[in-house]
Amino acid sequence: MTFQATPEKGRFITFEGGEGVGKSTQLARLAEHLRDCGFEVVMTREPGGTPKAEKLRAFLLSGRAAPLGPLAEAALFSAARADHVETLIAPALKRGAWVLCDRFADSTRAYQGARGGVDAKTLALLERAAVGDTRPDLTIMLDLPAQEGLTRAASRRHGEEVDRFESEAPAFHDELRQAFLDIAESEPERCCVIDAAMTIDDVARAVQRLVHDRFLAHAAQAAQ
Amino acid sequence: MTFQATPEKGRFITFEGGEGVGKSTQLARLAEHLRDCGFEVVMTREPGGTPKAEKLRAFLLSGRAAPLGPLAEAALFSAARADHVETLIAPALKRGAWVLCDRFADSTRAYQGARGGVDAKTLALLERAAVGDTRPDLTIMLDLPAQEGLTRAASRRHGEEVDRFESEAPAFHDELRQAFLDIAESEPERCCVIDAAMTIDDVARAVQRLVHDRFLAHAAQAAQ
Repeated sequence: MTFQATPEKGRFITFEGGEGVGKSTQLARLAEHLRDCGFEVVMTREPGGTPKAEKLRAFLLSGRAAPLGPLAEAALFSAARADHVETLIAPALKRGAWVLCDRFADSTRAYQGARGGVDAKTLALLERAAVGDTRPDLTIMLDLPAQEGLTRAASRRHGEEVDRFESEAPAFHDELRQAFLDIAESEPERCCVIDAAMTIDDVARAVQRLVHDRFLAHAAQAAQ
Repeated sequence: MTFQATPEKGRFITFEGGEGVGKSTQLARLAEHLRDCGFEVVMTREPGGTPKAEKLRAFLLSGRAAPLGPLAEAALFSAARADHVETLIAPALKRGAWVLCDRFADSTRAYQGARGGVDAKTLALLERAAVGDTRPDLTIMLDLPAQEGLTRAASRRHGEEVDRFESEAPAFHDELRQAFLDIAESEPERCCVIDAAMTIDDVARAVQRLVHDRFLAHAAQAAQ
């Protein structure tokens, strides 16, 4: 399949899921594929993505914010997100680029909301403050049993220290997985769950097919 | 003047203004007066007011959050505020108490917004996330030339270290004063500016008169 590289506007795709499900691997694979199709692709991640937000990332993942509580952590993730959206994501979309982001607002909902106990209404308002109208067009939820993800995450770490969230107990990660599945179920028009237990190639193909069906099939038909 | 201590609901009054304008002194004086009138009064302050929020206060005022930038500071102040409103202010108002608070959301607007450059729309959303429907019924803006306030603040410090914000340059405090005056002008139905250059007794009387005119005159008439 080939497509004209003339989208009327950029698309915003986020990858979500627990530790070790393959978000950054699959994001890179999709980016490569979309570039092959002729699109400008911006790859980014959360927390982080901009100098200010990377500073917050270092602070948050070091665990120094943890004693301040989940609400403060959610507020800081939202502050980082606001900068990320404003200075990187929104401008990229505006010029027609595709933005692929490793984690976004659903991670805050899952980690600080479902797991941290911050109430959904407060999180929704924080999310609106940070995200505004720059909501993802598609969210790919990579799903894997929590223990398998943790084992994968540990094997790629090569002796580096675990971060603030990886170091949580297994039950934390089971609940996290469920939180992502619940979000996907509540917003089926935006979210799509993909079984991340498949091989990397099979997951990559599933992601590509999804993106084509969602955004490119129509453009291809129109171009014929 | 005496009044029946049977308000239909509690009132939420905030004191705002720069360093050294007398907020905590005047808050204590009004609390004493309202208690003499027979009301339950809760005195509190921001950042802080609850165990979680006091933890954030210590973190914010130590300057450790400053390198994270004004948006992160605003997010943390908002997180502290959300806990303060939910666990202390709203329950107190609900049971009919008067809540007097030393600084509230206007301080975030002035310090992180007007001075820190965080955009008003983001701050408004953070404020909504933190405050919800628990908006102040009255905000007393104590106004004083910035230098005079700083001199007062220094004289009461008795050698203690200045905090994160007191240590800013004089121009910072001039702009802060203007930011509070601008807020007062934009919301005249909620805010009232009082000249804090008067004696403590004169300011206290002006505050009492304001509170009576605003909330108690009608109750007194109705009780006659």
